[in-house]
Amino acid sequence: MDSLTAVLDALEPLFPALEADYQDLHAHPELAFQEKRTAALVAERLAAQGGWEVTTGVGRTGVVAVLRNGEGPTVMLRADMDALPVKEATGLPYASTVTATDDSGTEVPVMHACGHDLHVAALLGACALLSSRTEHWKGTVVAVFQPGEESGYGARAMVDDGLFERFPKPDVILGQHVGPGPVGLIATCPGTVMGATDSITVKLFGRGGHGSKPESAVDPVLMAASLVLRLQTIVSRETPAQEPVVVTVGKLHAGTTAAVIPDTAELGINVRTSSAPVRDKVLAAIERLAKAESDAAGATAEPEITPVYHLPMTVNDTAAAERVADAHRKAFGDAAVMTMGPTTASEDFGILATAAQVPSVYWFWGGLDPEVFTAAFAAGRLDEDIPQNHAPTFAPQSGPALTVGVRSMVAAALSWLAAAGEATA
Amino acid sequence: MDSLTAVLDALEPLFPALEADYQDLHAHPELAFQEKRTAALVAERLAAQGGWEVTTGVGRTGVVAVLRNGEGPTVMLRADMDALPVKEATGLPYASTVTATDDSGTEVPVMHACGHDLHVAALLGACALLSSRTEHWKGTVVAVFQPGEESGYGARAMVDDGLFERFPKPDVILGQHVGPGPVGLIATCPGTVMGATDSITVKLFGRGGHGSKPESAVDPVLMAASLVLRLQTIVSRETPAQEPVVVTVGKLHAGTTAAVIPDTAELGINVRTSSAPVRDKVLAAIERLAKAESDAAGATAEPEITPVYHLPMTVNDTAAAERVADAHRKAFGDAAVMTMGPTTASEDFGILATAAQVPSVYWFWGGLDPEVFTAAFAAGRLDEDIPQNHAPTFAPQSGPALTVGVRSMVAAALSWLAAAGEATA
Amino acid sequence: MDSLTAVLDALEPLFPALEADYQDLHAHPELAFQEKRTAALVAERLAAQGGWEVTTGVGRTGVVAVLRNGEGPTVMLRADMDALPVKEATGLPYASTVTATDDSGTEVPVMHACGHDLHVAALLGACALLSSRTEHWKGTVVAVFQPGEESGYGARAMVDDGLFERFPKPDVILGQHVGPGPVGLIATCPGTVMGATDSITVKLFGRGGHGSKPESAVDPVLMAASLVLRLQTIVSRETPAQEPVVVTVGKLHAGTTAAVIPDTAELGINVRTSSAPVRDKVLAAIERLAKAESDAAGATAEPEITPVYHLPMTVNDTAAAERVADAHRKAFGDAAVMTMGPTTASEDFGILATAAQVPSVYWFWGGLDPEVFTAAFAAGRLDEDIPQNHAPTFAPQSGPALTVGVRSMVAAALSWLAAAGEATA
Amino acid sequence: MDSLTAVLDALEPLFPALEADYQDLHAHPELAFQEKRTAALVAERLAAQGGWEVTTGVGRTGVVAVLRNGEGPTVMLRADMDALPVKEATGLPYASTVTATDDSGTEVPVMHACGHDLHVAALLGACALLSSRTEHWKGTVVAVFQPGEESGYGARAMVDDGLFERFPKPDVILGQHVGPGPVGLIATCPGTVMGATDSITVKLFGRGGHGSKPESAVDPVLMAASLVLRLQTIVSRETPAQEPVVVTVGKLHAGTTAAVIPDTAELGINVRTSSAPVRDKVLAAIERLAKAESDAAGATAEPEITPVYHLPMTVNDTAAAERVADAHRKAFGDAAVMTMGPTTASEDFGILATAAQVPSVYWFWGGLDPEVFTAAFAAGRLDEDIPQNHAPTFAPQSGPALTVGVRSMVAAALSWLAAAGEATA
Repeated sequence: MDSLTAVLDALEPLFPALEADYQDLHAHPELAFQEKRTAALVAERLAAQGGWEVTTGVGRTGVVAVLRNGEGPTVMLRADMDALPVKEATGLPYASTVTATDDSGTEVPVMHACGHDLHVAALLGACALLSSRTEHWKGTVVAVFQPGEESGYGARAMVDDGLFERFPKPDVILGQHVGPGPVGLIATCPGTVMGATDSITVKLFGRGGHGSKPESAVDPVLMAASLVLRLQTIVSRETPAQEPVVVTVGKLHAGTTAAVIPDTAELGINVRTSSAPVRDKVLAAIERLAKAESDAAGATAEPEITPVYHLPMTVNDTAAAERVADAHRKAFGDAAVMTMGPTTASEDFGILATAAQVPSVYWFWGGLDPEVFTAAFAAGRLDEDIPQNHAPTFAPQSGPALTVGVRSMVAAALSWLAAAGEATA
Repeated sequence: MDSLTAVLDALEPLFPALEADYQDLHAHPELAFQEKRTAALVAERLAAQGGWEVTTGVGRTGVVAVLRNGEGPTVMLRADMDALPVKEATGLPYASTVTATDDSGTEVPVMHACGHDLHVAALLGACALLSSRTEHWKGTVVAVFQPGEESGYGARAMVDDGLFERFPKPDVILGQHVGPGPVGLIATCPGTVMGATDSITVKLFGRGGHGSKPESAVDPVLMAASLVLRLQTIVSRETPAQEPVVVTVGKLHAGTTAAVIPDTAELGINVRTSSAPVRDKVLAAIERLAKAESDAAGATAEPEITPVYHLPMTVNDTAAAERVADAHRKAFGDAAVMTMGPTTASEDFGILATAAQVPSVYWFWGGLDPEVFTAAFAAGRLDEDIPQNHAPTFAPQSGPALTVGVRSMVAAALSWLAAAGEATA
Repeated sequence: MDSLTAVLDALEPLFPALEADYQDLHAHPELAFQEKRTAALVAERLAAQGGWEVTTGVGRTGVVAVLRNGEGPTVMLRADMDALPVKEATGLPYASTVTATDDSGTEVPVMHACGHDLHVAALLGACALLSSRTEHWKGTVVAVFQPGEESGYGARAMVDDGLFERFPKPDVILGQHVGPGPVGLIATCPGTVMGATDSITVKLFGRGGHGSKPESAVDPVLMAASLVLRLQTIVSRETPAQEPVVVTVGKLHAGTTAAVIPDTAELGINVRTSSAPVRDKVLAAIERLAKAESDAAGATAEPEITPVYHLPMTVNDTAAAERVADAHRKAFGDAAVMTMGPTTASEDFGILATAAQVPSVYWFWGGLDPEVFTAAFAAGRLDEDIPQNHAPTFAPQSGPALTVGVRSMVAAALSWLAAAGEATA
Repeated sequence: MDSLTAVLDALEPLFPALEADYQDLHAHPELAFQEKRTAALVAERLAAQGGWEVTTGVGRTGVVAVLRNGEGPTVMLRADMDALPVKEATGLPYASTVTATDDSGTEVPVMHACGHDLHVAALLGACALLSSRTEHWKGTVVAVFQPGEESGYGARAMVDDGLFERFPKPDVILGQHVGPGPVGLIATCPGTVMGATDSITVKLFGRGGHGSKPESAVDPVLMAASLVLRLQTIVSRETPAQEPVVVTVGKLHAGTTAAVIPDTAELGINVRTSSAPVRDKVLAAIERLAKAESDAAGATAEPEITPVYHLPMTVNDTAAAERVADAHRKAFGDAAVMTMGPTTASEDFGILATAAQVPSVYWFWGGLDPEVFTAAFAAGRLDEDIPQNHAPTFAPQSGPALTVGVRSMVAAALSWLAAAGEATA
């Protein structure tokens, strides 16, 4: 029996408790940098596993755990912990009914609509396996439970709080994300795996007034509406069709009651690009269009354009990605590992590798019931029937998705650690 | 000395306390049907004046006070009490810093941005004058402090709670509103004085998703933006230019964060019309356009169109309006009373007269510093420099505006009551 | 028998030839300043009537005919002659199939879609009656057949060509227009009868390119489309609802083939206003919006905004209008004359009165089959079933509409001329 | 000296006459299927060269010329002949001032804005070289001068007229296109080289009327404008960012004069896609949006959506493309041949290969002055300074671009024919 099989075999008896933790995490989602309950659960479980040096409060609410197991490479395994301001509509028995106060002071529903609860549970499971079978590998594992990925600031906060000074410097950083594919499929992507993201707030300034006298006011709702339509033309007219670009207005807030023309309107704009010149062009176009809309409306002030966060492109080291893909082929079979092209999604995972100046690998694994997936595919109804990440109905299949998540992380980690183990064996 | 002069003379010693009450009301605005503090202050002051039978809780938070002073006509005097979800920006020493929870559970800033605080104080002052000089008139005064005018439901709530069964039936109903004209001007309008208003909520249904994958979602923000632009064409293309129509989208809310395409978007639409066929046409057009936008976007459900309230047209009885205008000319001089045409503003005042089937008169009085007004007028900057009702900077001139408000209400009331007094003298 | 009856009685034997002329004019419409065939027919018929001094080529293609019949007032009767670039769809046996080359060199269909053919025929008939019954009136008639009303330049061209120097100066100027009301109705309007019109061309400058590479071009079609939507907001948001304003984009031309992004787009904008400040505001808003759209699109040049023509307001002299209405009541009965409010339509008729500094009266008469009109009215389908002026299906009822047109003009003229006749009788 | 060098050497003495022909063709552009003068010039030159069997009128105005030179492969060389309705603005001494009547009967300017004049001249030159040096190769050359490429119907017309029955069936079909790169660069693309194109006309039905009475009309200009904005969202929201899609509205025509609301508006829409499912989705979305806009506006009839043409994807045979690239490397040097990805441009060249069921190769060559190109590139001003195909300023560098065009075609042809020549040598 090789090391991989030996370590993976440890999962079965641990699984029921792990799945219960997953469902508990799902039922108690927390917004970016509010992951106190999640961090406490993580710390408690790692303490119970034994062998880990656990540090909490890294980058405000992050957790770092180190397991030293002799000479060998240092591998950093990363899971993100935060949830989203989305009202859950999965109908799951362990669905969230939680609300929280967001940064603007508004009370919002909260949901693990992007699977970070599964990432946490899968990494906890991987930690359990690695810590319980230390005889099969050598080296150091640094498990990173990162806060605030959705805010775009979590990785940065951990780096700024000394992630690579206070803890062993890794030789490689590994991360994974569950997606709306069937359980059993792992997607690898050598090179650029995800594009850059920018999140921007645009505030438009009209002049409030009575709803019956628009001629004495400057209507910011109209300004905002026209800007939303105009922003569509960045993708349709200003960027090359060959280059993947997305401009989404995910948030538009103006006014409090129908009869009052408000003073201002605010748009939350999300931009996905995959090259620096096109990113520059898109950001400049947003500014130009917001300015022109303000001029068109006779706005009372220039628009306020505030960058909220910038996520760099996520680029997989080619050799390291191939090593991980090999491990996954060994763990799940050749057919399970497909190669994908870059997506328009983004991550702050790239900030870690950039800061540490080491190779990193990021992959996706499918979380859905394969039968459901296949039926939707056959009916040509993937979009209608399969909820995407961030949708209120996004619901990975608890047991199988978690199993694959644990195994894929362990397999990837061992492709560095087990070799060292064997070398010293 | 005639009755009018005799009664008005009572104001001077009372005025400092009255102005203090006005500023206190301004600093403590309350949303529709939340006017508990206001109602308590009103009841306390009326009790202190003496002679009034005071009933609270009429139509949830309204106050009705009756003063019986011998045989003679019954005159109903009405003031509305509620404030608006607007963040005050007047810079006044007694500016509001209050917030409240609105009907949707959101915490919003609150401001007396429509002068209802002045209406309350002016009616309290009129009550004080009338109750302290009963020897100069005969008849019955019914003072009505109405809740929820801005909600469109306040007058209806009082009527449904027995306003015209539980209290003396009036011969005439009088109401007044402060506006952005100079102090010293009263505007009368025989016949139709205000158009009808409808407030409507339109909810649009998309399909949420990740901001990077719009092709798997149906974007309700785009739908809402396009609908806002399309709604402009009702006024510009579908209704006759000769007919005053306003369609305002005062509220547009969608999404909670830039990176997530939300499921729905909600518009608050305010409609002003001045004839029934055009009102029908406009409401039908809103429905048609909302439906077509949903079809255009491939919406997941038909739009939900919910009427929030309907305010009928406000029509002044011609003879009664002339009687009030005469009284105002007597009180303020001929030059102070101008005749105006109908406005696109609306009120639920008309509901009272319609329910009671008696004549009613509604007039406006100016609340601004005449020098400021004249300077803005001369500079052609009325729109830019003079805040309208509902604007965050709407600020009537405390002392003079209140003085005129008290006097105009007393003069109008006495044009019925004093005659009776003289007849019996 | 009074003068009016005596003169009107002359119509019957003349009518078949007159109606034939009308149908011939309808079948041979001519664009502004191309009215050569029409002018020739007019001159020929007037020569045949006898007594007229006929001058052609006044204001390029206009005709002026003078009939001197002793001492008395001088009355100017005006008909406009030009047709429109509209493709006729009336299905009439005498429908137009004519095309012509417009000012831009494009070949366009031509149709009498605004009834000027009827105006010409009615004035020819009036001339016939007046010239054949000179014993019933005294004074001078100046019949003016004006070119180019639709261009906005026809009246100006005749004035500039000496209309009021070369021909007898009138005491009053009379004009009439057929409209989509029932035959038998005459509409009078003392004071302002029509608002001002401005016609403006806006040219937008993009940068052409291959349809597959929008990112290398600047798309003027998109710019034009966005501007059309933005222009709607002038009426919906920027002008008071109480003030009749219309902004119509009647023409939008860009590109020659789908696969080529063109360099430019051109809009023809028609503006109706009824006061000078609002007109200024609207024209400034068009300029501001065109400029802002160009900025939004990154246009290669500022938009070119070219005024095409300006028609002033048409204001009826109150006393003269009442005199005409009296004559019409005498000719058609009291019930036939209704009073109307100002319309958003415009005319260059006002240029004549302004230049001559004399009173003028302009009225409308109905041209449709009353049964059809009443049926449409009863079914609430006036807009759907009754074609308006300028529509391709606009078709006055040949015989009856022409009869009323002749009689109404004669009655109006005689209300000046017959009195003189009687005075000298 | 090898065959390639030997044949290419024949160019120099012929070049002045060839360049004169090119400039003559440029000065006399002809629209699709009107290429009579061009076809006559082609036939005359081929007759003068000798050896060619020339057939005119193939596919209406096409020319096919066959040169039989012993046993060996049959190679079809294709050039397209038609020009575009664009007003030339190159300022060249041989610029076009020509106009023509297009299919709708409108007189339009005509320009060789896509370089087909250069294609014709280059193929004429290649024919001259091949026919004058028959001792260096063996086989059959079929030169095809195709009409109507821009119409999308030219290749189809020749196929339907028996191109592959009446003339020798080719073993390979070769075509080339000049583009806005520097002279000296050849771009090869194994596999898919160009996407599919669809050209569609959408006619929207309003109800015409007077510009002053929009409420009695249904405004098709507004409908068209709104549809243009809505069409942008197909690319920005409905198709995956990873998939190149372009939707261009290259033509928008409505109305003839500002004061008349027209009955209809017409859009010319050009669609570029690179997979069948996305093409289906885009075409369905256009239909859905046009329908919804009609509903929104209360249109008088469903929109008429007419497919104008469909061009399939152009797919290069991989082995044949490599053979051509090798020949070009030999002729121009390794550095001259770059590999490119698929473009969003389209062609009807693919129709020939599909009909003949043989391999085909299509490549691009640069036509611009390298110094100008490099300066624009260095200044980051490629879009602003370098006119693309279809732009009114598109102007390949006459001499050098033509030289490369002749040589590249000859080199490609000889990579089949010379081998045969050598085999038999």
